[in-house]
Amino acid sequence: MISSVTAFAPATVANLGPGFDVIGLAIDGIGDTVTVSRSTTPGVHLTAIHGDGGLLPLDPTLNTAAIAASETIKAAGAALGITLKLHKGLALCSGLGSSAASAVAAAYATNLLLGSPLRKHDLIGPCMEAEAVVAGRHADNVAPALLGGLVLIRSTNPLDIVRLPIPEGLTVVVVRPEMALPTKKARAALPTHIELSTMVAATAQIAGLVSACYSGDLSLLSRCLADPVVTPARIGLIPGGQNALDAALDAGALGASISGAGPSLFALCRSVRSAKATAQAMTSAFLDAGLPATSHISPANCPGVRRLRQAPKAS
Amino acid sequence: MISSVTAFAPATVANLGPGFDVIGLAIDGIGDTVTVSRSTTPGVHLTAIHGDGGLLPLDPTLNTAAIAASETIKAAGAALGITLKLHKGLALCSGLGSSAASAVAAAYATNLLLGSPLRKHDLIGPCMEAEAVVAGRHADNVAPALLGGLVLIRSTNPLDIVRLPIPEGLTVVVVRPEMALPTKKARAALPTHIELSTMVAATAQIAGLVSACYSGDLSLLSRCLADPVVTPARIGLIPGGQNALDAALDAGALGASISGAGPSLFALCRSVRSAKATAQAMTSAFLDAGLPATSHISPANCPGVRRLRQAPKAS
Repeated sequence: MISSVTAFAPATVANLGPGFDVIGLAIDGIGDTVTVSRSTTPGVHLTAIHGDGGLLPLDPTLNTAAIAASETIKAAGAALGITLKLHKGLALCSGLGSSAASAVAAAYATNLLLGSPLRKHDLIGPCMEAEAVVAGRHADNVAPALLGGLVLIRSTNPLDIVRLPIPEGLTVVVVRPEMALPTKKARAALPTHIELSTMVAATAQIAGLVSACYSGDLSLLSRCLADPVVTPARIGLIPGGQNALDAALDAGALGASISGAGPSLFALCRSVRSAKATAQAMTSAFLDAGLPATSHISPANCPGVRRLRQAPKAS
Repeated sequence: MISSVTAFAPATVANLGPGFDVIGLAIDGIGDTVTVSRSTTPGVHLTAIHGDGGLLPLDPTLNTAAIAASETIKAAGAALGITLKLHKGLALCSGLGSSAASAVAAAYATNLLLGSPLRKHDLIGPCMEAEAVVAGRHADNVAPALLGGLVLIRSTNPLDIVRLPIPEGLTVVVVRPEMALPTKKARAALPTHIELSTMVAATAQIAGLVSACYSGDLSLLSRCLADPVVTPARIGLIPGGQNALDAALDAGALGASISGAGPSLFALCRSVRSAKATAQAMTSAFLDAGLPATSHISPANCPGVRRLRQAPKAS
């Protein structure tokens, strides 16, 4: 019987272009790590969080890792006492799916500890329950963090998930300016209503985007990444944000937009070479606005959550 | 030098499911026919219209066939006097792209008469100019009537058209109840604004629909044909309409919705056999509401406009 499992779940870009609340993408190389161990005490106990600067609650009813672990045990119909140790690799409120990564790593590790009674797909529900507590009931971070790649959330109730193909060579840049933008504030910037003609523009964009993913037509993909509603409403909350998006296009990116609820931005590029130039241009634009920013480059086609054979050293 | 050309353009289903104003489909076997002949008199002259019950204007500035012919000559930079004869195979205000079929047949025949200086794709603009005069500036009837098949209008300005693949065996039923529903009245039934959450639902539906076209997943296609905005707003204008949509699903159709601005309805089916049962169920539902209705079955994958070697007899 396994006594302890460690899992890593990646960062994700949700609200991908015109895919507000419905398209998300997994990123390679940055994410959260959770170690789940059997305990003789019933219930879910969060014993340590590293890398959060002391900001996250240890209360298991308020932490997405603990909620997701608890919901996974419930979904499996099991009874198990566990302790969790969480290593945050992702900054909070950065727009890179930080809460989702914690939830997904915890749910996946817990399921492994239980002997894998649930499929990955079955973990989306438990992770969404965790997201609902902190960030709203949506799946465009947790689904790609679990499944990897590019994921369309056709419906959350009932859950209906479609994995989309990714054009070869497509590369993602994420740029995170040093500021926090609470999801609540980003949601408040959105219009409650939009014109019908704007909906037509939005449906045309996302339809073209999905078509481009299947056909590999990067020129079409480029034309379809602009989002007529959400990015214009939110970009003003991010100092230097619009300049950084413009700089990405000037540097040759196929398109650029806000990652999740921001303040991170993402750009899609034809190649690693183009991604490097784009990352440089975007961080410079933020610096010009007085915000230091870090960038990360990843293939667009990345795996989701995975088991680590060794727990991080700090645990 | 050719002195006369006859062309046939098919009926089309615009506003396909969640594809309001952006997705249209060509139908086989029903449409309009236009004969264009050289004339020594400069300008475009509409000399005869058959099959319209005397309802359409012969004034070339008000008839879509004449406007499209005139715009085609202009786009080709040519100077040519022509006479047009129009045979309406499609009823007016039926939601089957009647005005577009006339425009497309005329533009195509005129271009042939000029020695084909323009590609089919170049005729979309001239045909949209014609549509703008009678039905609003949209391309989701004229593009499939020209190109055939299933067409996504990503943008009308600049024009950006994507042909979508069609799952094998997919069959369309169109059912036309004996009533006229002016496009103006159907447009007036639409909301001017919608909630942001409704936009999310609409983008998720059309994204899933496009994915299903590429992957051939008919179950996904079936889940993605419901439209959260336009069909609910308009179906009350068509007596028996909601019952006919319900009857289509009960009979095994993958999905059903309003064709164009109505009153015709369409259903997508897995096979001709399923389409026959669906057509029967839908016409029965209309009859129960006191409206006689005719049905037509077509493969979903149909050619667009084509030349006819012989003009219709009535000319």
